[in-house]
This record gives sequence, structure tokens and C-alpha cells, in this order.
Amino acid sequence: MAVNPPRLDPPLLVPGFRIGVASCGVKSSALRGKRTDLTIIAADVDCHAAGVFTQNKFRAACVELGEQVVGQCGAKVRGIIANSGNANAGTGIHEKEWARMMIDAAAQSIGVKFKQILSASTGVIGTPFPIERIREGIRQAVDSLGPDHWEEAANAIRTTDTFAKWASRKLGDYTITGIAKGSGMIHPNMATMLAFITTDAPLSATQLQPILKRVTDRSFNCISVDGDTSTNDTVYLLSSGIGLRNSPLMDTVAFEAALMETCVELAQLIVRDGEGVSKFVTIEVTGAENEADARKVGRAIAVSPLVKTAFAGSDANWGRILSAIGNSGVDVMPGAITLRADDITIVEHGNLHQNYRDEDGMAVFARDEFVLYVDLGTGKASITVWTGDLTHEYISINAEYRT
Amino acid sequence: MAVNPPRLDPPLLVPGFRIGVASCGVKSSALRGKRTDLTIIAADVDCHAAGVFTQNKFRAACVELGEQVVGQCGAKVRGIIANSGNANAGTGIHEKEWARMMIDAAAQSIGVKFKQILSASTGVIGTPFPIERIREGIRQAVDSLGPDHWEEAANAIRTTDTFAKWASRKLGDYTITGIAKGSGMIHPNMATMLAFITTDAPLSATQLQPILKRVTDRSFNCISVDGDTSTNDTVYLLSSGIGLRNSPLMDTVAFEAALMETCVELAQLIVRDGEGVSKFVTIEVTGAENEADARKVGRAIAVSPLVKTAFAGSDANWGRILSAIGNSGVDVMPGAITLRADDITIVEHGNLHQNYRDEDGMAVFARDEFVLYVDLGTGKASITVWTGDLTHEYISINAEYRT
Repeated sequence: MAVNPPRLDPPLLVPGFRIGVASCGVKSSALRGKRTDLTIIAADVDCHAAGVFTQNKFRAACVELGEQVVGQCGAKVRGIIANSGNANAGTGIHEKEWARMMIDAAAQSIGVKFKQILSASTGVIGTPFPIERIREGIRQAVDSLGPDHWEEAANAIRTTDTFAKWASRKLGDYTITGIAKGSGMIHPNMATMLAFITTDAPLSATQLQPILKRVTDRSFNCISVDGDTSTNDTVYLLSSGIGLRNSPLMDTVAFEAALMETCVELAQLIVRDGEGVSKFVTIEVTGAENEADARKVGRAIAVSPLVKTAFAGSDANWGRILSAIGNSGVDVMPGAITLRADDITIVEHGNLHQNYRDEDGMAVFARDEFVLYVDLGTGKASITVWTGDLTHEYISINAEYRT
Repeated sequence: MAVNPPRLDPPLLVPGFRIGVASCGVKSSALRGKRTDLTIIAADVDCHAAGVFTQNKFRAACVELGEQVVGQCGAKVRGIIANSGNANAGTGIHEKEWARMMIDAAAQSIGVKFKQILSASTGVIGTPFPIERIREGIRQAVDSLGPDHWEEAANAIRTTDTFAKWASRKLGDYTITGIAKGSGMIHPNMATMLAFITTDAPLSATQLQPILKRVTDRSFNCISVDGDTSTNDTVYLLSSGIGLRNSPLMDTVAFEAALMETCVELAQLIVRDGEGVSKFVTIEVTGAENEADARKVGRAIAVSPLVKTAFAGSDANWGRILSAIGNSGVDVMPGAITLRADDITIVEHGNLHQNYRDEDGMAVFARDEFVLYVDLGTGKASITVWTGDLTHEYISINAEYRT
């Protein structure tokens, strides 16, 4: 199931990038077959690159290597190699070697250097990495390189995702196009997922990195499906700068806004496709003393199993929401808190609103999309967090299959 | 369901205490009827008392008042009044008044002062507190006071618990008897529950409080069912000191050990009866640099929905366990970690053990009770955490009923 997956407009081509996919047969038995599982994004020119990575201490080798490339060669990146079906994480002494071999094969196939390629892997943890099949897939993928394969790439990076995820924005003559994947192990600390975003806007690596960090903190790091952060989370942003000749001055503020729209759209798509999710809930936290507090409160609500099962049961159980806020670790003032669900005020200044009727709250919680407004009443900082409910289907997906 | 609930020996009488129960008809419709829901523990003499309370910022009025009594009159406590079915939390402007009225009724009925009575409430949050029915119940309960009603009291404090929980220990001539309740909203930060422990051992309030804190940190604060900490968690420890005449010197170390055994037994009973729990899993974390780190790692494993659904599915998914450890916030060294399940070594020094076979791991995870040993390999601190799995029944209980 997925919550109202929107009919996406076709992804926009980005000058300077070609994409190829292949099927290596790596995906787990349930998904194996005709599904593609290997993606190459090849740049025609040296690109400026930025990356944001998982905070999990068990980081996969591909994450370590990708971070090195961004740090050391962030102005000369020529592409991304990504596979799905096997995370090459927790695979022991061969993990790093396998990650290097994948990058090396991609670099050789498109005729660039090892340290110009970014890497990402997603899928099952702890299973030996089928490097020979990956190499064969890389040869196939390079043969199929073309500028209009974004949708195929969005499909090839899927694991338990039920639909492909992409988003595009125009910014004057420039284009931003990103693809993303993620469905389980999704939690806002570099939320467990992959996203690859490209643009032809002329921005340097030193400009891109802080922009990507800020945007990620307000998009991918604001979603939660199950509170588990994965070992392989990665967001890459590549700029070919191909559009440079036409526009003398780059408006970085406008670029950041357009990138934010792109990333929020991708992040919301991940929540809509969250494992077992049947409801899409937006949590708007306002009135916090600082953004960190707002985030803690939003996360506490978004990860509480009792709140999430109440969402699933269409139960406007505001007591569980207050309890989750009380557990957030933030020094909240219970008497200052106001809680609304869509247009229904439930709690005002810490007390049940005099006109609140349980059936009104229930009517909102029965919707497949609604907004919870939480005003902490102690400051001016705010954040928006997106999450889903916790359903029988989540248990089935994760108790009955090895993912 | 409950995981191997043991056949408990009858609770031991504690000199100086009498117990009465009553049925006020407060419990939610599913539980209402003949179930008792009000408990008075009355002391014949002034008792020394200690208390440990929820860390949730939304603390119920009964918790605030109980903490005041322990702090101000901890040497002259004469009893505990507790109701189940309504937590009197989030009930607005009348919350404190209702809590005071309950205490006042109990104090008058047994002929002591208001500030000599400890209070506790558990049940649904946000529903008006039926103070008149509670008062009537208090009158009934006082009429039934007797020294041998511990089992009745353990039943009367139940909410979604499927069985009554108590534990007793003898320490020379002294006795320790405790009762506890808890099934959902169970998380190790003063794990969501109530426990009332009494003894005739002669210890002062200033001795009891640090002992109870240490014991709680290693018992009730080491369990997790669903990662949610409630608004009403309370552990009370009362000492009548009645045995004083017979034993000149109290061995506080031996007392703490006996109290630890009592509280660990009660804490384990709560996990065995956790909402939807079908497996009882002990997580032994060793080799940590300090106890706080060991606790964070144990908690991270115990609250991860992906680990808990793997338990439910009898899936020895060690990749999810490593990922949870990596998310614990502790600066672990992946290459130093060893992971065993009962007698099967899965990961040794960060790598999959050469003799490990998936079917051996699966055989352990298929057991209804097993131990996960996690050695962090960086220090000497350790902790033991008890938890259960995350099942369809948990979703059913919490999505389909308002608790």
C-alpha cells in the first residue's frame, strides 16, 4: 500500500548527465527477475559535488568511499554508481574491497578515474556482495547510457519501494532533477534512503555542500517511517555547470529554495511509500525555543509506537500525543501547549478545549492525510515533520521477510 | 498472550501492612465488570518511604503529590492509595483537585493525615476522573483491609495486564513483598508501570531512597516493551521497621541485593506480559566503556522496530542488530563487537563468524526465550536489558482499542 502516490510529471532532462541501468539479478528472491538493480549516472564534464551521509556508526564501505570522494575530489566528480538488493554492509573483511571493485569497474567503463566516482548501495545487510554480477551489470548499464533514463534509474534503485520517486524543478534556464528511494529503516538522522540530485546550475562544491546540508535537515531529515537509521543513507548532489555560459550570476538563495522544493517532494514521496503506511501525517511544531527542540518534539511524536498505532486506528488519542511530547527530552511547559488536528482544536494551553468533541477528532484522524499542529508556546522556532502510521502490514513486511 | 508466565508462589505477608481492594467500575468497557480497580495499602505504623517517578514532562498530579510526600514526610508515611482504569492525567484544570480528593478520602478512611498517603493512578489518559465512584471504592476497600490480600491488590492494579504480578524475598527474619503492573507504554526511563514494595526491615527513608534508585536503574529501568514512557510511572518502597526489635544491625548491602532480586523478578514479569509480546529476550551488553553507554546500546536494540519484528519473525537478522547498535549514539568500534545468541556466535570482532550458519541462528531466534550477548570490546561496563518482540497483536491492541 502507499498513501495517495501522486501521478508524477516526467522528470526533466539535465544537461550534462546520461543515465544507464541494468539487471544483475541481485535483488532478494521476492523482487528478483525482471527488476533492474544497477544504476550509473555519468556526467559529460567534471562536476561539483556535495554529499550527506548516514550517522549510523556501522557505515557501509560505499558510504566511507563516497564521503572521501566528496571531500577530496568534490570539483571533479564524473558520476555515481549505485546498486540495489545488497547493501554491501556488515559483509566483513571483503566489504571495502568489493566496494572499491564496483567503483573501479564503473570508472573504467566510462573512462574516468577511480576517485571521480561516487558510490551507493542499498538492500540486505550481511550477505556477500555478488561483485561479478555487479561488474557484468555495469557493462550493460554503460551500453544503455542516455539523457532521458531518469525514470528507469528511479526504478532501478528501488528495494521495497512500491513506486519510483523523482522530482524536478526549473530555475530560470537551469534544471534540478533528483531521484530517491526508501521505504523501511526510515528515520530522520539522514533518513534511511538514497537520493541523487543533479543540476546544470553553476555552483561550486564549496557552495553546494552547506546548501545540501541545510536542505537535507529540513527535508530528508524531517521524515520518519520506523525510527531506524540505516547503514547506507546517502544524498548526493551533482552540478555539471553546463548552463554557465547563458547566465552570468547564480542566485544561490533561489537555488536553495528550488532544491528545498525538490528534496521536500522526494522526502514526502518516501513517507507516502513507507512500509505498511496507510496514512500520511504532517506534524507542524511551532513555538519552540530553538529548532533542535522543535525537531525533538516532532520526532518524538513521529516515532512513538503508541501514537502511530493510534493513527492506524483512526483514534484521536491526544493523551498519547501529549505523553510523547513529554518524553521528547525537551523541557516543555505542559500548560503552554496547544494541539490541533486540521481545523479541530483539541488541547489549548494544556487543557482539553471546551468545545472539543471526541467525534470531531476521530473524523480528522480517519482521513488518510491530516496535519497535527503542535504549538509549544515558549518560543518562535518551528519545524515540519512527515510521518505515517504503524500497521499490521509493517509487521508482516518486517517479521515475515528478510529485508 | 504472555511469554511463559511463571506459576508464582503465594506472596509473603509483611508485618505492619494491611491491604484492601474494591471495584469502582472505572476500568474501560472491555475490562469493566467484576474486575477490581482500587487498592489501599495501609500501614499500622509510620513508615519510611522512598519513591521513583516517571521522567515524562507530562506527569500526572498523583505523581507530583506522591513525590512531595516522599520528599517532605518520607519518615511518616501511612499508606498508598491507587486506582486503575483512569490515569487522571491530562484531565485539565480539575486533575490536581481530583488527585487531592482521592488522597484525602483515603487518609480520612484510615484515620491518618493527608500528607501521610502516597498516591498512584493508571489507565486511560484524558478522561474525566470519576471521583465519586473512587470515594465509594475507598470506603469499600477500607472495610476489607487484611494482611493477606497481596494477590488481590496485584489484581486490582492491573489494566491490560493478562496476569497479576508479585514477588517476595526473605532476608533473615525480614520480608520484602512487592506488586507491580504494566503491559504497554513500557520503556526504560522509569519504565511505564507501577510497583509497590513493602518491607518490615528497619531502614530509614534516607537509606531507602538511594537504594531504590540504584535498584530501579537495574530492574524496572532495564525493560522495554514499546519505547513509550508513560505519564504515571511510579515505584514506591515502604518500610514499616516492625522487625527492628529482633535484629540489632541491618545489613543494607544484603537488603539491596534482596530488593534487586524482587524488582528484577517484577520487571521481568512485566516484559513477559508486554502487549502483544510472544518472545522474552534478554540482552546482555558487556565490554562498554561505562554503564550509560551499555544502557544506550541495550535500549537501542530493545526499541528498534526492525529488530523487534525480526524477533517476531524468528529471523536471526544480525544486520539489523548491528545497525541498531550503530544508531545507539554510543561511539562504538564496529571492529570490536562480538554478538552471540544463546550458544551461537554470530559476529566476532565485527565480522561474521566463520562457522556461523544461518540455520543455527534461526534455531535460536525461534525459541520463545533466548539471550543476546553483545560485547562492545572497549571497556568493562555491562548491563542487562529485557524486552519482547513487536507483533500483530501489539498493533491490534493499540490501534483497535483506546487504552
